[in-house]
Amino acid sequence: MIQERNLIKTIRRLAGSSPVGALVRGIGDDCAVLRLLPGSELLVTTDLCIENVHFRRAWHPAVAVGHRCITRGLSDIAAMGGHPLACFLSLGLPEDLPQSWVNGFLRGLLAQASRFRIPLAGGDISSTRQITADILLTGQVPAGKAVLRSGARPGDRIYVTGSLGGSAATLKQLFAGKKITPAKSNTHFYPTPRIAAGAWLRERSLATSMIDLSDGLSVDLSHICEESSVSAVVEAGKIPIGKDADLELALHGGEDYELLFTVPRRARVPARIAGIAVTEIGEIRNRGDYSSAIQILGDNGRVRALPQHGWQHFAKRS
Amino acid sequence: MIQERNLIKTIRRLAGSSPVGALVRGIGDDCAVLRLLPGSELLVTTDLCIENVHFRRAWHPAVAVGHRCITRGLSDIAAMGGHPLACFLSLGLPEDLPQSWVNGFLRGLLAQASRFRIPLAGGDISSTRQITADILLTGQVPAGKAVLRSGARPGDRIYVTGSLGGSAATLKQLFAGKKITPAKSNTHFYPTPRIAAGAWLRERSLATSMIDLSDGLSVDLSHICEESSVSAVVEAGKIPIGKDADLELALHGGEDYELLFTVPRRARVPARIAGIAVTEIGEIRNRGDYSSAIQILGDNGRVRALPQHGWQHFAKRS
Repeated sequence: MIQERNLIKTIRRLAGSSPVGALVRGIGDDCAVLRLLPGSELLVTTDLCIENVHFRRAWHPAVAVGHRCITRGLSDIAAMGGHPLACFLSLGLPEDLPQSWVNGFLRGLLAQASRFRIPLAGGDISSTRQITADILLTGQVPAGKAVLRSGARPGDRIYVTGSLGGSAATLKQLFAGKKITPAKSNTHFYPTPRIAAGAWLRERSLATSMIDLSDGLSVDLSHICEESSVSAVVEAGKIPIGKDADLELALHGGEDYELLFTVPRRARVPARIAGIAVTEIGEIRNRGDYSSAIQILGDNGRVRALPQHGWQHFAKRS
Repeated sequence: MIQERNLIKTIRRLAGSSPVGALVRGIGDDCAVLRLLPGSELLVTTDLCIENVHFRRAWHPAVAVGHRCITRGLSDIAAMGGHPLACFLSLGLPEDLPQSWVNGFLRGLLAQASRFRIPLAGGDISSTRQITADILLTGQVPAGKAVLRSGARPGDRIYVTGSLGGSAATLKQLFAGKKITPAKSNTHFYPTPRIAAGAWLRERSLATSMIDLSDGLSVDLSHICEESSVSAVVEAGKIPIGKDADLELALHGGEDYELLFTVPRRARVPARIAGIAVTEIGEIRNRGDYSSAIQILGDNGRVRALPQHGWQHFAKRS
């Protein structure tokens, strides 16, 4: 049986108690206290990681679950062009969960937090029937400079960082019963949030809109189209396809945590940003140009509507 | 079956999309964007509300669960002397949960948010086996002015707002099988966070330490003693006892969401602060004065050690 008070002590010890960067007061008070840089705005995002919805204990090592959990939040900060400040963790654990699982989870989460130099600054703990983690990330961005989903304009070109579909390819193999070693290089188990690329784009005011690819290209691009009141066309032949993936997985697979962004037509975009390749994949159009929000131009030269069927938690998954 | 996308739309509609106060950008982007007052520090707190741990569907109406959920976070902001900025909600729902329950929960939560003039600025949704809500509150306080748990000094007098044990008295009746109408005036179902009193104390630099009474007086006072490296003595006869409660419930019952604070020995404290009665209940002592952290002076003039047995989620509850 996991004792709440002991667990809080363990987390507090692992998290460290000395103020780090923006953290004035961390675990051990009613609230954490954080100091932003003058002239900054605050970014806040929360993401649930639920056993048998976002991961399976049989497939995902605890350390990878912790890594993926915090990476979801960091990726949201990246998509605003922000810098992370601190993370908070609300953790629900079954009473019969081995302490070793909790230790592995915290190790994966805190190692990734350490890579991005942010403290675990607070959270909550409870007993639950399935493992339940809610990760909260705070970040900062110079006032008025956050890159929103709503800034895409007709004529803007559409880019992605890295390659797409690799995470979904691994998930497909897991669903097919294939035994997979969760290598550190496998982006399904150990994705990288594109914090540096997002900040680079924001600093140069290059991106007119940005989102992270968590639900899949088709769904996430539709969010940009909806918030910006535009439509889009992507070129099938230009989409960078990840390891073991195909076009379908690159279009509809989620959890790559790459950035999708738009830039003005005449803007110069380098081939790599902050060490990661970027690829032009299409163009923003007027909403009235098409009946559907997103069209895809196939290698055969034909255009068809791109349906949105990415990750839907409430949908049944076999 | 609750559809995730429809639920997000419902929440977005209920939450309202227009920027309110500190909110630059709410639901609908990768992160919410918030602007703090110049010279402020950020407060962050998260609290889990789990079905059959923090509430029971048979006992607690959905609207009261929503009210209690956000009140836990608001009370943490109050305990720092802060003003709330915005709330975020991560919500896990069983697939067979009636939509009416979700609507009631959101109504209770948003009505309380509205009373404190804060927007619901974001969150996440997933499918879970039991109802799981993680409420995140952000707040602000002038830099360096947050009232911490660590500032109590020997000689300080100990105060509480309101009365104690009333919430636990109702819970005890519920456990005993008594049928209780969840009246709006019942503080178990509809507690009030002491935001105004907390801010009043902070503005006057009157409180040397402060905590909210969520776990129970014995446990919460021990947190102040631990963080401040002091001990304390409370007087049984001075403790304001809530409706239907007794001394035991006032000492060890949780969820009253009153404020416990310490003031310098010679400070003048009014009988009411921001409309709520405050009562002196004891004194802070040197840690070395006693073997146990907290002593209680009984009506018989004898002093005994006060054990800490408040709310422990992982402990078995019949």
